[in-house]
Amino acid sequence: MNQLPDEPRLRLRIVFGPDEMMGPGKAELLEHIAATGSIAAAGRQMGMSYKRAWMLVETLNAMFHAPLVSSTRGGPGGGGAELTDTGRSVLRLYRDVAAKAATAGATELAALQAMLSDIPDGK
Amino acid sequence: MNQLPDEPRLRLRIVFGPDEMMGPGKAELLEHIAATGSIAAAGRQMGMSYKRAWMLVETLNAMFHAPLVSSTRGGPGGGGAELTDTGRSVLRLYRDVAAKAATAGATELAALQAMLSDIPDGK
Repeated sequence: MNQLPDEPRLRLRIVFGPDEMMGPGKAELLEHIAATGSIAAAGRQMGMSYKRAWMLVETLNAMFHAPLVSSTRGGPGGGGAELTDTGRSVLRLYRDVAAKAATAGATELAALQAMLSDIPDGK
Repeated sequence: MNQLPDEPRLRLRIVFGPDEMMGPGKAELLEHIAATGSIAAAGRQMGMSYKRAWMLVETLNAMFHAPLVSSTRGGPGGGGAELTDTGRSVLRLYRDVAAKAATAGATELAALQAMLSDIPDGK
């Protein structure tokens, strides 16, 4: 008996073009921004530097026809960030693709799971 | 007008457990091994060192209940490699998941594509 979960998880990367892609990391960052109201806090929750979190937000904001994240630096409340309507739409669409993919491939994923080795690799 | 392809591509990583995953790289390596009959040649086609190609094959062979690649080193024909029945099954199932995922998420993928910026980022 091994410690594997009952069902494999799918991680999806959507490749729009040579420099335009969105995967689990960017989606998770958007979710954390929505939850925390802060790019820095969102990055921290993912073990990511402030600089990297900002860079990913800038990449996302430039990738779509409107920014996904609106932010204010400093100010009385110390600045903050939130998802725009576009940001919420993109995140929802990404999550919908992921959910539909997992459902559509459930039979094949279960077949692959059943073909795994029963012997843990000892790590 | 930008240079993006008409449809975004999905890249799928299947996570079976903490150390067990299969994504586009391993699938492509299996395809090249089937096509070339050689782990070294398959790795070269992917810009991968001989050592890394072998390591990935060993990882795949240990991950499933039977090896995915059978190989002979040296010998009169210079050695060779081919996919086992298990290897062909795993590769087919992976490709089926990917195809079904793309079909299932087509509406959302098109919606995301339509939300991309029209302005190339100049890279």
